[in-house]
Amino acid sequence: MRAFFPGRFQPPHWGHVRAISAILQEADEVVVGVGSAQFNYLLKDPFTAGERIWMLREGLRDGGVDLARVVVVPIPNVENNLEWLGRVKSYAPPFDVVYTGNPFVALLFREAGVPVKQQPLFDRGRLSSTKVRELLLRGDPGWEELVPPSVARIIKQLGGAERLRIAAQGEAEPHRW
Amino acid sequence: MRAFFPGRFQPPHWGHVRAISAILQEADEVVVGVGSAQFNYLLKDPFTAGERIWMLREGLRDGGVDLARVVVVPIPNVENNLEWLGRVKSYAPPFDVVYTGNPFVALLFREAGVPVKQQPLFDRGRLSSTKVRELLLRGDPGWEELVPPSVARIIKQLGGAERLRIAAQGEAEPHRW
Amino acid sequence: MRAFFPGRFQPPHWGHVRAISAILQEADEVVVGVGSAQFNYLLKDPFTAGERIWMLREGLRDGGVDLARVVVVPIPNVENNLEWLGRVKSYAPPFDVVYTGNPFVALLFREAGVPVKQQPLFDRGRLSSTKVRELLLRGDPGWEELVPPSVARIIKQLGGAERLRIAAQGEAEPHRW
Amino acid sequence: MRAFFPGRFQPPHWGHVRAISAILQEADEVVVGVGSAQFNYLLKDPFTAGERIWMLREGLRDGGVDLARVVVVPIPNVENNLEWLGRVKSYAPPFDVVYTGNPFVALLFREAGVPVKQQPLFDRGRLSSTKVRELLLRGDPGWEELVPPSVARIIKQLGGAERLRIAAQGEAEPHRW
Amino acid sequence: MRAFFPGRFQPPHWGHVRAISAILQEADEVVVGVGSAQFNYLLKDPFTAGERIWMLREGLRDGGVDLARVVVVPIPNVENNLEWLGRVKSYAPPFDVVYTGNPFVALLFREAGVPVKQQPLFDRGRLSSTKVRELLLRGDPGWEELVPPSVARIIKQLGGAERLRIAAQGEAEPHRW
Amino acid sequence: MRAFFPGRFQPPHWGHVRAISAILQEADEVVVGVGSAQFNYLLKDPFTAGERIWMLREGLRDGGVDLARVVVVPIPNVENNLEWLGRVKSYAPPFDVVYTGNPFVALLFREAGVPVKQQPLFDRGRLSSTKVRELLLRGDPGWEELVPPSVARIIKQLGGAERLRIAAQGEAEPHRW
Repeated sequence: MRAFFPGRFQPPHWGHVRAISAILQEADEVVVGVGSAQFNYLLKDPFTAGERIWMLREGLRDGGVDLARVVVVPIPNVENNLEWLGRVKSYAPPFDVVYTGNPFVALLFREAGVPVKQQPLFDRGRLSSTKVRELLLRGDPGWEELVPPSVARIIKQLGGAERLRIAAQGEAEPHRW
Repeated sequence: MRAFFPGRFQPPHWGHVRAISAILQEADEVVVGVGSAQFNYLLKDPFTAGERIWMLREGLRDGGVDLARVVVVPIPNVENNLEWLGRVKSYAPPFDVVYTGNPFVALLFREAGVPVKQQPLFDRGRLSSTKVRELLLRGDPGWEELVPPSVARIIKQLGGAERLRIAAQGEAEPHRW
Repeated sequence: MRAFFPGRFQPPHWGHVRAISAILQEADEVVVGVGSAQFNYLLKDPFTAGERIWMLREGLRDGGVDLARVVVVPIPNVENNLEWLGRVKSYAPPFDVVYTGNPFVALLFREAGVPVKQQPLFDRGRLSSTKVRELLLRGDPGWEELVPPSVARIIKQLGGAERLRIAAQGEAEPHRW
Repeated sequence: MRAFFPGRFQPPHWGHVRAISAILQEADEVVVGVGSAQFNYLLKDPFTAGERIWMLREGLRDGGVDLARVVVVPIPNVENNLEWLGRVKSYAPPFDVVYTGNPFVALLFREAGVPVKQQPLFDRGRLSSTKVRELLLRGDPGWEELVPPSVARIIKQLGGAERLRIAAQGEAEPHRW
Repeated sequence: MRAFFPGRFQPPHWGHVRAISAILQEADEVVVGVGSAQFNYLLKDPFTAGERIWMLREGLRDGGVDLARVVVVPIPNVENNLEWLGRVKSYAPPFDVVYTGNPFVALLFREAGVPVKQQPLFDRGRLSSTKVRELLLRGDPGWEELVPPSVARIIKQLGGAERLRIAAQGEAEPHRW
Repeated sequence: MRAFFPGRFQPPHWGHVRAISAILQEADEVVVGVGSAQFNYLLKDPFTAGERIWMLREGLRDGGVDLARVVVVPIPNVENNLEWLGRVKSYAPPFDVVYTGNPFVALLFREAGVPVKQQPLFDRGRLSSTKVRELLLRGDPGWEELVPPSVARIIKQLGGAERLRIAAQGEAEPHRW
């Protein structure tokens, strides 16, 4: 049995790692869908899809997850939500169930006839990517506790805090108008 | 003489039906352009282009309009406004005049040499798609009076109120970043 | 019961009109999907989507088909075939069955769980859009018998033969490289 | 030595002209990249790429700049910032240095190994395209002093103030949803 | 040290598995880039990106490769080759060297300053995806020896031969014109 | 009076330079539209838009053309020919007449109401970009006489012959399938 677990993972945190670990107790394999794959260097999407894949893998290793049972797949967004369903189907190996806490994504898959489950949540008040980005942006070192050590190391190596501070100035992002 | 009448029709209401009916007193046929055709399951664009075409047709039947004189054409948006004019020209049967109350659309067509008229307005303070969506979203049954009975039936059948409530949570719309 | 009948209709001929007429003996409404909607002024796709919609409607009138039971919807192509299924679903009113003689389209819909039927064929050796374009291109007036009289009139009015002859020179089509 | 100087130039003003003039004291040629090239008739992007190219050239002439040493290149935006770098590289003649005051653009080029300099700024509190658009929008003739006389003439000829007022109504911009 | 190994993998065969195995003797991890990710159900590209990822993983397992050291990343094509380089950079975790036997891909990466190596070739006259597709298409069971047993099993389960036969009829592929 | 002169310029040759020179005897300025701007490193489109702009400018200098009267504008192709017209209009400064020898481009502009003239032809049997590419590809030095000396120098500096030879192998162009 293969499960699909979509998210943006900007960046991955301990909550993601624990959720994937828990899903793997029910499923043989998890396909982790890295959404908004085409976006990067933005305030809400600072890391490239490739950087997020890298962080997810190293974070999962930190969490003792068997990487051979995880498939991480970048999925670029598309404007038409019904086309997005087809895109997911074509980019991911076949899956039997979707794990998501997002009511919107749940609705789309349910209407398409795919079983949807709520993934287990871990300390959600504290563990969130939005929180990590906010702490990073204002220079608060508290973000490091929210992510696996490898993820923290990669974010520092990439200059993540600096990248966010520059994106926050919001000037002339080439993809906007 | 063929007229072009563009809109988003999210959803169609009695004002649209009456306007089309009035335009048909001046024109032989009306091409109804369903704009933003690629968007759906969003707070501002909850219904697919196909659902809007379906609602328009049934609503026009309710209003006694001869469907054989109406052509409903979905038109996906494009970023470049001058390209959008070419797109409209290529998706619609040839037309002689545009009916619109939107000053922006009017400007684009006027500069392209197409005659523009203001479509007749009917009780515009009350009849608006934005109003219908707002009432639907907050569970106020007053929306039903604003749309033809077939449109109301289809919106219920599609779970429109639920779809709007989920879209309103605004989380992780796959097409945004 | 609503049926979906996709094609390119470059241009519509008597075979299309008769097929739609026959489908309407089994279905309440037919959604005619005008595929490759974004292409025009090309050797294989000379007419715009809007011109094809116009020709289909007038040709159906010639064939005595009730236009109020036909919905003609342009559908732009997309590279990813599984996304194309989602696009069709989002551009067309809901349908219960697909009529197609194209094994490729049939496969896609069957795998997506949509019932597929072969539409009735009429004199297929003679009635084909490819044939119409070939005759038009070489100036053979035989093409006129293959299409309803309104379609012939529109093709002449649009300068269809001249358009094909120029497209056949194959130089510098702006969309190719 | 060739320099690259990107901007949106909505519209060009004296600050741009003086900056280009100053860059030409260090570089043999300047490639002026007109970003967001696909946008027009919008509140933030009222002028087409072609109109901006026209205004830049006439404004540079007013400023006594040798047009033979300036290459003005429209560059459409792309969602993926790392792809944008490749797009710039493919649309512009080869360049040795980027002049920009935008920290975001500077970051992208620096990480790609391209030298980045701050272009000279001239009276920046007063000379800004945003300021010109604001004055135009509210009918304040003060905008004319901020741009070269040819640019003022072209803006009037294009009906720039009217275009902005209509865009400001924000209704139904065809490219948004 | 991380290596990048791009291909279309339509489908993966023993040559791919052995090449990846050999690369892993020089590199710590291999990023396998599944190109043309948006194409599927076509004669040259019969399998979806997700199906190819699935086959690659199972084939690598058959070949005794440690999946924890392999990252399989789908990469949709883009028209502009210099943008494609940026896309690869943004979709893949950072890599130090590219392994490819394709002179075109080698040229692009070399000019971008990325070291390029020829991957080890294994029985190339016999082991090729084109060959597998040809045998599949004409019903010759010889294809099975060219791919790992799991890949053979998946191709059968997906009805790969039938899919190819239908694609070979070449009619009305929705993404072409 | 401003003229528009579109082409692909892969690469520019003496015929282009002389044509532009001749057009400038009738027009005040020429907008040279570099079409297929998004394509590069391909057999038919080996040079990037930026490289073509560079070559055009240096070739025009060789031919004694006043660069201040020439605007070179890259224009990416679009699938829908009627949208292409809008794209050209939005990327180019306003123009009064189109010079082209291409019947297809002439048809599109004429139907859009733009005057079309045949540009003067110079030794067309010998001077053609296709010819230059063929000679380059087979290592025949005769190509050098067909282009201005600066263009020859740039092509050598870019390794144009090698680029063509690699493109000619036709393997795995990232933008095709």
